[in-house]
Amino acid sequence: MIKQYEIKLPRFGRGFHLITGIIEKTLADLPEQGIVHLFLRHTSAALTINENADPDVPRDMQYAIDKLVPENDPGYIHTIEGPDDMPAHMKSSLLSVSLNIPITNGRMNLGTWQGVYLCEFRNHGGSRKLTATIYS
Amino acid sequence: MIKQYEIKLPRFGRGFHLITGIIEKTLADLPEQGIVHLFLRHTSAALTINENADPDVPRDMQYAIDKLVPENDPGYIHTIEGPDDMPAHMKSSLLSVSLNIPITNGRMNLGTWQGVYLCEFRNHGGSRKLTATIYS
Amino acid sequence: MIKQYEIKLPRFGRGFHLITGIIEKTLADLPEQGIVHLFLRHTSAALTINENADPDVPRDMQYAIDKLVPENDPGYIHTIEGPDDMPAHMKSSLLSVSLNIPITNGRMNLGTWQGVYLCEFRNHGGSRKLTATIYS
Repeated sequence: MIKQYEIKLPRFGRGFHLITGIIEKTLADLPEQGIVHLFLRHTSAALTINENADPDVPRDMQYAIDKLVPENDPGYIHTIEGPDDMPAHMKSSLLSVSLNIPITNGRMNLGTWQGVYLCEFRNHGGSRKLTATIYS
Repeated sequence: MIKQYEIKLPRFGRGFHLITGIIEKTLADLPEQGIVHLFLRHTSAALTINENADPDVPRDMQYAIDKLVPENDPGYIHTIEGPDDMPAHMKSSLLSVSLNIPITNGRMNLGTWQGVYLCEFRNHGGSRKLTATIYS
Repeated sequence: MIKQYEIKLPRFGRGFHLITGIIEKTLADLPEQGIVHLFLRHTSAALTINENADPDVPRDMQYAIDKLVPENDPGYIHTIEGPDDMPAHMKSSLLSVSLNIPITNGRMNLGTWQGVYLCEFRNHGGSRKLTATIYS
């Protein structure tokens, strides 16, 4: 059985934002067992799973990815949309736009410390949309 | 319901190659709702989703990944297959060999700017094979 | 049809460890066609697919990821759990905690050279748990 939902996220600033709560609230009626697939329909943001407890972790994640893929690299050609644009594309591919999470006993079966993050790589990315597909 | 297809891609040179059209053509008969899973059966290439419009984006993606994982690093031991080999393995894990894309209204539900790329990391990688699994 | 298994991996040291055999042994009774989803329930380790033959490849993968995300970066704030902790979170997001592998003719349809790796990024990570979900 397949169920699909379109989720419109609030507008987030550049950075890593915990959205586990938004996902759980939207997908309230989960089957006993299955998979949730989350797919972000954008090319300069990403979804990832990481530590959900200490806010320093998403802060440091942003620091680390910005350092890994620096802006204003003179090697870039695709620069017309601003210095944050091409690095955002690269970061989106590195972290990816899709996540699969198992459903067990009617809940997303994340580890104790795992949370779902929206990674916004643009300075002014606007509201992002994702498609959630549940199969069971 | 599960359907599976083996797709043999044309021989591509090193770089990022848009293959959305090849995938859509091969998987012509999609269900109304579901998921397409694409799995590349190789360890020195990858699949990724990124901007489908400006050809400078895949050019810059290649530049950025080559810079991130440089060749001829004296720390590598696995060098017998040439300087492009070990970096290709690392890039394959960074971008990954598998993609899940939702199907909505009988079509792959990619965002407006999203396309599927084969990332060929070898200088002479030959033809690559992928397994597409559709579940609905 | 959905089947789910909890797999407790042996305690591995820091590095890349081939676990294809453990997965195949645990998921012995696979359907003819489908998908295996593997989900690691931790935030400082990852799963990846890479070359299964030459042990220098996982050695070099570890070298490359350690170089990409170095320890003792003075930019990190989240340092209380030791110098290997924050880099481990970043590496976990870069390589990801989940894999989808097609099942064809009753077997995981990996390419000839593909193996499943547990990537342990902590010096003393302990035993890791993963949830395997099979759908067919």
